[in-house]
Amino acid sequence: MIKVINLEDKFKRFDDLWSPKIVGRLDNYDVKIVKTKGEFVRHDHEDEDELFYVIRGMFSLELDEGTIDIRPGELAIVPKGTMHKPFAAEETWLLVLESSKIKHTGDVVTDKTLKEFEEI
Amino acid sequence: MIKVINLEDKFKRFDDLWSPKIVGRLDNYDVKIVKTKGEFVRHDHEDEDELFYVIRGMFSLELDEGTIDIRPGELAIVPKGTMHKPFAAEETWLLVLESSKIKHTGDVVTDKTLKEFEEI
Repeated sequence: MIKVINLEDKFKRFDDLWSPKIVGRLDNYDVKIVKTKGEFVRHDHEDEDELFYVIRGMFSLELDEGTIDIRPGELAIVPKGTMHKPFAAEETWLLVLESSKIKHTGDVVTDKTLKEFEEI
Repeated sequence: MIKVINLEDKFKRFDDLWSPKIVGRLDNYDVKIVKTKGEFVRHDHEDEDELFYVIRGMFSLELDEGTIDIRPGELAIVPKGTMHKPFAAEETWLLVLESSKIKHTGDVVTDKTLKEFEEI
């Protein structure tokens, strides 16, 4: 039977920041949720687009051309090869869709870089 | 500059039912929104998974094993090859993610079958 995934229930299961959890898979794409607050590393993804949909809070992306703010009910797609530095002034909850082969910090490796993502 | 897509604003631009509109693209995938009410044709997609996220209302899928109901804040992924008959008792708004090559009624052709989707 196909599972119905309640995002609020899934978000209640963890508190760590900038640590995406996989809640489903669509072909070769991951459906992830993540809690964010503060700054993340500036990076790009050479071969993959990345979709961010905001559930709670406000998610900002510093781009070369300026900064965009994404609010609940809004989404933005970062095209492949586009440098972006994510940040969130308050705790912000996101739904993220991207290829399963993506490296979430691009080619930049920091203490926030994860090799694998937990499935919840 | 990357566009921020406000789904509520996009939903206000149309009233037709079961007629998905493309609001963005993620690699070779379409990000679509659609208003639904009543019944849709029973079909499957041989090669593509299909993600439904409910924004408003309640979206139901009749499967061989039973019926699932998807409510706002919930999503479900229909695996490739899974027969499903969508219906919505009330007007229901959905975000849909699926391969750009998908045929939205599978191999079933009805008066609801569209060859192309409008971009809004």
